[in-house]
Amino acid sequence: MGVRVAVNGFGTIGKRVADAVAKQPDMELVGVTKTRPSFEGRRAVEKGYPLYLAGNGDRAAFEAARLPVAGTLAELLSEVDIVVDATPDGVGRQNRALYESANLPVVYQGGEKADVAEVSFCALGNYAACRGKRSLRVVSCNTTGIARAASVLEPRWGVEHWEVTLVRRAGDPAETNRGPVNGIMPTFRLPSHHGPDVNTIFPDLPIATTAVVVPTTLMHVHVNHVRFRRPPGDAVEILDAFRATPRFHVFAEWEHVDGTPQVMEYARDRGIGFNDMMENVLWENGLRLDGRDAYFFQAIHQESIVVPENVDAIRAMLDLVPDGPTSIARTDRALGLGASPITTRPTEGPAMAHRRRGRATLK
Amino acid sequence: MGVRVAVNGFGTIGKRVADAVAKQPDMELVGVTKTRPSFEGRRAVEKGYPLYLAGNGDRAAFEAARLPVAGTLAELLSEVDIVVDATPDGVGRQNRALYESANLPVVYQGGEKADVAEVSFCALGNYAACRGKRSLRVVSCNTTGIARAASVLEPRWGVEHWEVTLVRRAGDPAETNRGPVNGIMPTFRLPSHHGPDVNTIFPDLPIATTAVVVPTTLMHVHVNHVRFRRPPGDAVEILDAFRATPRFHVFAEWEHVDGTPQVMEYARDRGIGFNDMMENVLWENGLRLDGRDAYFFQAIHQESIVVPENVDAIRAMLDLVPDGPTSIARTDRALGLGASPITTRPTEGPAMAHRRRGRATLK
Amino acid sequence: MGVRVAVNGFGTIGKRVADAVAKQPDMELVGVTKTRPSFEGRRAVEKGYPLYLAGNGDRAAFEAARLPVAGTLAELLSEVDIVVDATPDGVGRQNRALYESANLPVVYQGGEKADVAEVSFCALGNYAACRGKRSLRVVSCNTTGIARAASVLEPRWGVEHWEVTLVRRAGDPAETNRGPVNGIMPTFRLPSHHGPDVNTIFPDLPIATTAVVVPTTLMHVHVNHVRFRRPPGDAVEILDAFRATPRFHVFAEWEHVDGTPQVMEYARDRGIGFNDMMENVLWENGLRLDGRDAYFFQAIHQESIVVPENVDAIRAMLDLVPDGPTSIARTDRALGLGASPITTRPTEGPAMAHRRRGRATLK
Amino acid sequence: MGVRVAVNGFGTIGKRVADAVAKQPDMELVGVTKTRPSFEGRRAVEKGYPLYLAGNGDRAAFEAARLPVAGTLAELLSEVDIVVDATPDGVGRQNRALYESANLPVVYQGGEKADVAEVSFCALGNYAACRGKRSLRVVSCNTTGIARAASVLEPRWGVEHWEVTLVRRAGDPAETNRGPVNGIMPTFRLPSHHGPDVNTIFPDLPIATTAVVVPTTLMHVHVNHVRFRRPPGDAVEILDAFRATPRFHVFAEWEHVDGTPQVMEYARDRGIGFNDMMENVLWENGLRLDGRDAYFFQAIHQESIVVPENVDAIRAMLDLVPDGPTSIARTDRALGLGASPITTRPTEGPAMAHRRRGRATLK
Repeated sequence: MGVRVAVNGFGTIGKRVADAVAKQPDMELVGVTKTRPSFEGRRAVEKGYPLYLAGNGDRAAFEAARLPVAGTLAELLSEVDIVVDATPDGVGRQNRALYESANLPVVYQGGEKADVAEVSFCALGNYAACRGKRSLRVVSCNTTGIARAASVLEPRWGVEHWEVTLVRRAGDPAETNRGPVNGIMPTFRLPSHHGPDVNTIFPDLPIATTAVVVPTTLMHVHVNHVRFRRPPGDAVEILDAFRATPRFHVFAEWEHVDGTPQVMEYARDRGIGFNDMMENVLWENGLRLDGRDAYFFQAIHQESIVVPENVDAIRAMLDLVPDGPTSIARTDRALGLGASPITTRPTEGPAMAHRRRGRATLK
Repeated sequence: MGVRVAVNGFGTIGKRVADAVAKQPDMELVGVTKTRPSFEGRRAVEKGYPLYLAGNGDRAAFEAARLPVAGTLAELLSEVDIVVDATPDGVGRQNRALYESANLPVVYQGGEKADVAEVSFCALGNYAACRGKRSLRVVSCNTTGIARAASVLEPRWGVEHWEVTLVRRAGDPAETNRGPVNGIMPTFRLPSHHGPDVNTIFPDLPIATTAVVVPTTLMHVHVNHVRFRRPPGDAVEILDAFRATPRFHVFAEWEHVDGTPQVMEYARDRGIGFNDMMENVLWENGLRLDGRDAYFFQAIHQESIVVPENVDAIRAMLDLVPDGPTSIARTDRALGLGASPITTRPTEGPAMAHRRRGRATLK
Repeated sequence: MGVRVAVNGFGTIGKRVADAVAKQPDMELVGVTKTRPSFEGRRAVEKGYPLYLAGNGDRAAFEAARLPVAGTLAELLSEVDIVVDATPDGVGRQNRALYESANLPVVYQGGEKADVAEVSFCALGNYAACRGKRSLRVVSCNTTGIARAASVLEPRWGVEHWEVTLVRRAGDPAETNRGPVNGIMPTFRLPSHHGPDVNTIFPDLPIATTAVVVPTTLMHVHVNHVRFRRPPGDAVEILDAFRATPRFHVFAEWEHVDGTPQVMEYARDRGIGFNDMMENVLWENGLRLDGRDAYFFQAIHQESIVVPENVDAIRAMLDLVPDGPTSIARTDRALGLGASPITTRPTEGPAMAHRRRGRATLK
Repeated sequence: MGVRVAVNGFGTIGKRVADAVAKQPDMELVGVTKTRPSFEGRRAVEKGYPLYLAGNGDRAAFEAARLPVAGTLAELLSEVDIVVDATPDGVGRQNRALYESANLPVVYQGGEKADVAEVSFCALGNYAACRGKRSLRVVSCNTTGIARAASVLEPRWGVEHWEVTLVRRAGDPAETNRGPVNGIMPTFRLPSHHGPDVNTIFPDLPIATTAVVVPTTLMHVHVNHVRFRRPPGDAVEILDAFRATPRFHVFAEWEHVDGTPQVMEYARDRGIGFNDMMENVLWENGLRLDGRDAYFFQAIHQESIVVPENVDAIRAMLDLVPDGPTSIARTDRALGLGASPITTRPTEGPAMAHRRRGRATLK
């Protein structure tokens, strides 16, 4: 018997968090909510997840579809220790009074503004500061991706300056009403909101972000330039730091993972979650160090990267384990993330060392 | 201990067939082959599949990547009862002499011309005729999809005339060197080759097919018009026939599966294979009957639809079970395909019946 | 001095109709309307088109942008002989009372329902029946494309049965809020509305249409199957009929126009309108005749195909010329459409004749 | 009578350069070359451009298509004063011996390596240094875009450091064999080759570039961060410098040009060339200054941006005018580029000034 968890909202994030919670040894998924019947609700029932009627749900529609309804959201909330709000952007804030009246701790998502919760959360970033809180906000996918990377880079070498160009996906695979079909859309807010959002986790990180939207559904890609205060010895030292950190996946050059389609193909081969890639993805041949300046790509799977973070947020709030690393390890073991029997560290040779350390010089 | 199977080629089809074989109670996957190391080879090793060097493979590249090589293709062939050739289009034919010299029965794929094998194969279509053969060709994804549908429609109502417009995907998700990015490409062969290919399974079926290629990676969609010799009673009768047949999946209107992105999202939710949809996909609200004329959409997942067919082809050739239905049932149970606890048959009412039977009249 | 024309709405259709009207020898463009300033309004001013404030327009926004406003829609209507309504779908109907109170003849677009106007219009189809009307509706792009083809085929060989699969574009190039980005969306209305819409022009034409939407912005493609009552002699006879009809463009095989991207590239090379393709596009190698059955592709440029039709509708209503062919010839000459000095009829030879007449046989 | 120009290669660049040359008052287009008949060759004939057979061209194919051939490449070269090589990447170098034996000055394109020619060329960057040369290389579209911007920024405020993330298009609109259809492909060369290529024009510019490829055909987008040595007064000062420079187009916020699809729609409205955008495109609301740091987007039309540069390169080599500004002005006047009667400078107000100067602070 674990802590009893409700997931309010069973869309892209909610269905993943529900699965992840159901797999944790110290948690129990009590139910999920839907507003209308759909193939996703059908899967909830097929998986045995009690299906509750969301706030504005239509019970008759569920009955017509013969999908059994276990009760209302209010009834669900009365049976749990904590609720994860995975409703659409802005709805979480509307639900806040409801959760407060039920006297329930709540995990919000990054689509809400930061002040919806006491603290914004990223497991690698600020787990300790979030223990025992009554409300947390798991930051958005892009912010989580940057904050995780910051948790690797900042303590080791110190970040003097960080720039990220976010090349964003247009919509998730099944969001068929979103465009563009053909074109690149700059985000005319300079810098973009992502930098300040990272500062909700790392307040002093000197970061500037810029974004464009492109016609793809698979992943975001971040193009990073970090200037360190203390120079790493070489690119391998940085790659090894990422490799040694949970929730990072570094592809070797010989794997021929040429872009986000191949990353998601690897995820399908691996079969975790909904063929998800919950880790930050880096490429061995996609990082270059030039003195104190590192350039690297990272790919972020917008649908799933925050899923383990939600699980950790539950543990932090209910103080189920003594620290972040313990929670992360438990979460990841239950989800199947973590060390492969195959090392992706390549055989070292002069050519490779040359490539990693770069050719060009930038003053 | 089951029959010993080799899979030559570990790409889109090969990796799926390997997994499917490994799950069968009466089969054993002895090994797979690769020409060069890649993320897919890495997964083979992580899954414990012995990795052999394909004909023109580069052993040194595997050693550099620290991927263990179990031996050569010739060595693999010497250890098995049957081989599935899942090499790229046209390579299967080149391999034929090799398989013959190893005196091995072989399953080819639909990328080969029909005369590569004794008979072309579709489990619902002509299993009986394929028993004991030394070589079979599993027809291509589009042909399999049409042949399966023919196995439902032809025996029940007789097909007087069938037209299919195939709206084809540009490439598989990770085939990033294929286009078009923006545009529709007619196939300037009228009719397309798919009709004659269906005739390798149903020689007398009066079918004409036309094709266009569009910028998507997920699935093909077939737009069908069938004129029957004997009129079905109503659209529900046809839908029920599809629902009662294995390897068909009929979505209900309330599931809100609006197109191929939602179909593949359902497949991710379901989690079979590489989040595959090995069944022909139909929509309850995507079939209309007007007298003897039925119009319906079906979606075909190009990556996976032939996977259970390959398994059945092995059983047919080695005559492991007495008939097709027995093989199909065993294959599908092992793969997790088949009856959901949720019925998708909607509550019947006047409005729905009206919609199914159509509004317009076509002489 | 020609008839005085107002164009209400200066979007995709309106801006093209305005240009086309301005080029006609017997018409004068008095003004166009916009609701807010934009790059398109800027172009109107740069071209010297008086810019009037549409019904719900914001004059202050134009002033802030320093775009001169010539007056209100009511003022514009008081100065003209006829108005073309090119407002968004459904707005035309809302404007009807306004036009009636101004006692103005009006041309509506195909986004309005048929009963918005006295008659639906296609120049090649029913010009004579539209002379002197007070309101016409130019049918939509897809309907215009089919109706034009019907005007070629029906009188010559009689249509016994016609099926069209419409492979539709997701949105126009600058409609960046429309999807899908990756997927095929069936239109779950069987048959689709296009067939009945063609019947507003050709009431007895036995036609059934089915539609899917795909991720492209350039053109629609129609996949046609026509069964004739009287068989044409050969495919060349049909192609020659299309070639001999205005508003058809038949590409030769040697032109290597492999799909809609190449069609639109040809349109850019040609430089008519906004690099438009106002003709129905067919391919010499994309038509096959098999007895009484013809299969052919046609591509339809959704942005421009109705533009010459709007011009002809004006002439028909005001009875400026004695018949349709005279209007069509005048419109097309002004627009630059029509005979190229280059014939695209290929050298005839046995191989080509073989291909045109087809290989396969369909009973 | 002007200088006599041959264009070898009549593809994306060649057909545009041919048109541009034909419009210049001091140049004469003598002929263009093609290897096989196509719709583009047809347009050449329709425009009256003599069509010569390229090196490996097939005369019989042209005859079968009834496209008149004026002669061979060698014959064309014997009739001109200068040749523009617009053949595919790498073919220009193969042609070098031919041009040298014909003793002709030659303009190469950016697909060739820098050492193919004496000097690399960008009209705003280094016209003076290119006068009288026997061979020039017009740098590639992306390099031209950056070099033009450098010619504005470096002299005024000094560039201390410049970073560009290039979000690149997958292929040109009619390059239908190029992908990806869905995905983002990082360029695993860090920094990318574009920075060193800019240094062929501005040897000392401290620039680093990184690139990804995305599924679009319309334009590239550059995300720029420039740190100046001497701070500009405000963002308007920078925008005004761009506005005052030929070959820059700055969109105002009220124009609602939200991304590259709207930019290309504006280009269609404007109707220059093949609906081209030969200028660097910037957005008033897409530039932010924060102390010495400027962030801005610029969009680059890969098909056309080098076209006026080719014209200027001809003038520089043959020394037809005394300086670059004279050539640029003459080229642009002939092409229709340049000052619109509409100013896009917005009404100044507190809100706008606030936005331009930025909200966030980056240390």
